Amino acid sequence: MNKVFMLMTFIGVPLSVIGSLMHWPSTLLFVIYCLTIIALASYMGRATESLAIVAGPRIGGLLNATFGNAVELIISIFALREGLVGVVLASLTGSVLGNLLLVAGLSFFIGGLKYKRQTFNVFDARHNSGLLMFAVILAFVIPEVFSFEMDSDETLGLSIGVAIILMTLYLAALFFKLVTHRGVYQSAENAESQHEEEPEWSKGKAILILLLATLAVAYVSENLVHTFETVAEQFGWTELFIGVIIVAIVGNAAEHASAVIMAYKNKMDVAVEIAFGSTLQVAMFVAPLLVLVSLMFETKMPLVFTMPELISMATAALLTIIISNDGETNWFEGLTLLAAYVIMGIGFFLL
Amino acid sequence: MNKVFMLMTFIGVPLSVIGSLMHWPSTLLFVIYCLTIIALASYMGRATESLAIVAGPRIGGLLNATFGNAVELIISIFALREGLVGVVLASLTGSVLGNLLLVAGLSFFIGGLKYKRQTFNVFDARHNSGLLMFAVILAFVIPEVFSFEMDSDETLGLSIGVAIILMTLYLAALFFKLVTHRGVYQSAENAESQHEEEPEWSKGKAILILLLATLAVAYVSENLVHTFETVAEQFGWTELFIGVIIVAIVGNAAEHASAVIMAYKNKMDVAVEIAFGSTLQVAMFVAPLLVLVSLMFETKMPLVFTMPELISMATAALLTIIISNDGETNWFEGLTLLAAYVIMGIGFFLL
Amino acid sequence: MNKVFMLMTFIGVPLSVIGSLMHWPSTLLFVIYCLTIIALASYMGRATESLAIVAGPRIGGLLNATFGNAVELIISIFALREGLVGVVLASLTGSVLGNLLLVAGLSFFIGGLKYKRQTFNVFDARHNSGLLMFAVILAFVIPEVFSFEMDSDETLGLSIGVAIILMTLYLAALFFKLVTHRGVYQSAENAESQHEEEPEWSKGKAILILLLATLAVAYVSENLVHTFETVAEQFGWTELFIGVIIVAIVGNAAEHASAVIMAYKNKMDVAVEIAFGSTLQVAMFVAPLLVLVSLMFETKMPLVFTMPELISMATAALLTIIISNDGETNWFEGLTLLAAYVIMGIGFFLL
Repeated sequence: MNKVFMLMTFIGVPLSVIGSLMHWPSTLLFVIYCLTIIALASYMGRATESLAIVAGPRIGGLLNATFGNAVELIISIFALREGLVGVVLASLTGSVLGNLLLVAGLSFFIGGLKYKRQTFNVFDARHNSGLLMFAVILAFVIPEVFSFEMDSDETLGLSIGVAIILMTLYLAALFFKLVTHRGVYQSAENAESQHEEEPEWSKGKAILILLLATLAVAYVSENLVHTFETVAEQFGWTELFIGVIIVAIVGNAAEHASAVIMAYKNKMDVAVEIAFGSTLQVAMFVAPLLVLVSLMFETKMPLVFTMPELISMATAALLTIIISNDGETNWFEGLTLLAAYVIMGIGFFLL
Repeated sequence: MNKVFMLMTFIGVPLSVIGSLMHWPSTLLFVIYCLTIIALASYMGRATESLAIVAGPRIGGLLNATFGNAVELIISIFALREGLVGVVLASLTGSVLGNLLLVAGLSFFIGGLKYKRQTFNVFDARHNSGLLMFAVILAFVIPEVFSFEMDSDETLGLSIGVAIILMTLYLAALFFKLVTHRGVYQSAENAESQHEEEPEWSKGKAILILLLATLAVAYVSENLVHTFETVAEQFGWTELFIGVIIVAIVGNAAEHASAVIMAYKNKMDVAVEIAFGSTLQVAMFVAPLLVLVSLMFETKMPLVFTMPELISMATAALLTIIISNDGETNWFEGLTLLAAYVIMGIGFFLL
Repeated sequence: MNKVFMLMTFIGVPLSVIGSLMHWPSTLLFVIYCLTIIALASYMGRATESLAIVAGPRIGGLLNATFGNAVELIISIFALREGLVGVVLASLTGSVLGNLLLVAGLSFFIGGLKYKRQTFNVFDARHNSGLLMFAVILAFVIPEVFSFEMDSDETLGLSIGVAIILMTLYLAALFFKLVTHRGVYQSAENAESQHEEEPEWSKGKAILILLLATLAVAYVSENLVHTFETVAEQFGWTELFIGVIIVAIVGNAAEHASAVIMAYKNKMDVAVEIAFGSTLQVAMFVAPLLVLVSLMFETKMPLVFTMPELISMATAALLTIIISNDGETNWFEGLTLLAAYVIMGIGFFLL
């Protein structure tokens, strides 16, 4: 399998470069780009896995979330410069939904097909539940509800305030997990299991591969975005559907691959850290940063989603909290999350 | 007590038949029908109890929920054929509220008066919490919110999609509980307690009584529905109040009786399975089936409740999840659910 | 430190009386009043602490909540007589938000700086979660949503019904905690810790000081309210911001002081009882009582908050439930609650 991905990478990357320079048909390019990203994502997954063995599940998950979201951040800044506020909010929504429902759902489902009952650190689960509730529900809902009775300046002011608080709390959460409460909540089990396995690549090699693959994914992703308009026309998709569903699936391919691989190896702590950590990074770091960055451009972006986007994120967060809060998963819980994703997919497709 | 119910049954059923054929006054018939249903429900309760001892708490609860909801399903299909979409949605709402708040509330309260602290399988509690959140909150809220920005065709399309996913997940949930994870989450305590008691009736006799009583309840219930209009006028009730509150109380009399009896005998696993299992069956099987069945009739039914119906169900589900998620109950938790039911009852009465 | 507060009290109280009689400038009076209340609050905190050692954490917390809320009740009745329904609803909102987010947040944060992990009775936590969900979410949301389709008489009728049910359930909750389930859920740890410490003051002296300090706080608070209009103009604050944020901070100074002191002494059971007990007393006793009292005045008060008020309370309650439901706290959970408070503060400031 790894050889197939190697082949796909070494054929896909040059083809992507040549195809984009030579302006091949959009639908052909769309397929090439998608396959290349999936192949590159497998490298990112394996590199993260090696690093996770060396650095422990939390740092491993953090690294993965960061590399996954760097791509999105860059694409979104380009979109903001063009004034595409709606597209950016839609792709933030898609990223939250994709990570919470699709990545976590697939991990729980695939992992659950192999193991009857999988567990992860219950303290981490509760910590993540609190942050999901804070970021996705409270901090996203308040600007929306207050904005009904505010003018656009006041709404922007509240958005800036919420953005600063979200980023501050995100940094505090890192300080909490990596400094003051490092290891406090770690199960003895995990501490041991780290010595069980040999990493595939050395630390240096893994970091190098991760960096190169991220750069290649960023390049291919950006080209991919430009094929969307034509593809949307040909397949009859709305731009909202592309923003929320397609961008999120392809843009989070790396997280998908790594999380599912980790779940299949019964390393649920890493799988959960990727899925929820990535959601929290999008909600508490990427989204607020984009609000602040947008102040430099002509079109400012308030933190006000459309009602379907907001309610989708809020119900997805509530469902995930209820399902993951006990630190246990099985195939049916994964299927429930996937079913929620399909419902929202149909909704955004028809909207 | 059992003799009283026997007397009520053998007088009530013939009286119901004669009265309906001879067109006695509606208010008199209303009283006869209600008492007959309560008497028949006691037989259903005892038959279920016998079966539960033989077949274990889950299958027993499932049987009970199914027989209880068969009645509702039949009545609703007749109503859909007449185009009474609003009445069907109201009675679905009433069934969810009645099972979550009234049946569970009474069980916890009555059981709690006898026992200081009652427990049930915490894994089942969490499994049910996840499904309640998925079905009642996510799957019912999404079509509502998206429908604001959709035309009626798109809304119906989304409703059909949600209906198919709900029914698929319901079947998967049965597969999960009865096949892949059967007994995995069963407490040793329950396994033992099954041998403690002798069933009142043999398996065959219990099934026969259950079938006969269900048929009789279905017959009487259908007649009962026709008295509502006159009774509503005489008592000054709105049709919404009858749909949500009265139909639900009488229509779920069987579940009420069995669940409370089980709670009083400290068999909380069965009581909870009846209350929550019945809710989930209504939300994940009866409601979506009715959406699909309505496609054969002139008036189609989208899965879009009124705002008071939706918010009542969502807050009821959240309250039940918070209260039941720890697998422990007492009289005060029961009283809290009952208080919530009274608040909603007043609301629908005044609406 | 205690000496400083003694000095502040014996200077502040006479100054408050003289200043108000001699009509000193409002901003000066504002500062004097605030400092005096903080000093008096420290006495209330110490008196409560003494009583808590004698009477146990629950009665101690109940006493504190009652004395804290008596002040608010009196001020609100005066406001209702003047027809200021909006101000009363705003200050009820502020009280709920202040206790849930600011008092609990500060307690968890300050306590967490000293102790890595603090615990409190998990059964109490769940009991409080259920009541928060019932009162703040279900009982406050239902009248709001139903009121959209009701005329003002029906809305008032529903409000009265909800008010009576809330007060009945509040009394039942006291009966549950102090009679039928007294001590059932008490941890052995607490039972012991009561003997560890000597109370600072005797029972009689503590009660006397509590009464005197409450009276003085009530007097100063009422005067404080009259300075708000002028201060609001000078600082550019809206009346809503004053109602929700400023009144709540000053009006709950006593709870703040006691809860934080208790948390710092690692008596989380008392700290939580003050914060959540006070919230529940406001939501289930003060608010409904004010609805009933308003019937005697010309302007009746329905239990219908503005949308920003309602959503702020509902999201705050959900966040608190998720964070506190496991009976464990740390500095980061406190910071999360404080961050939520700041977001809402900015919102009400800009509204």
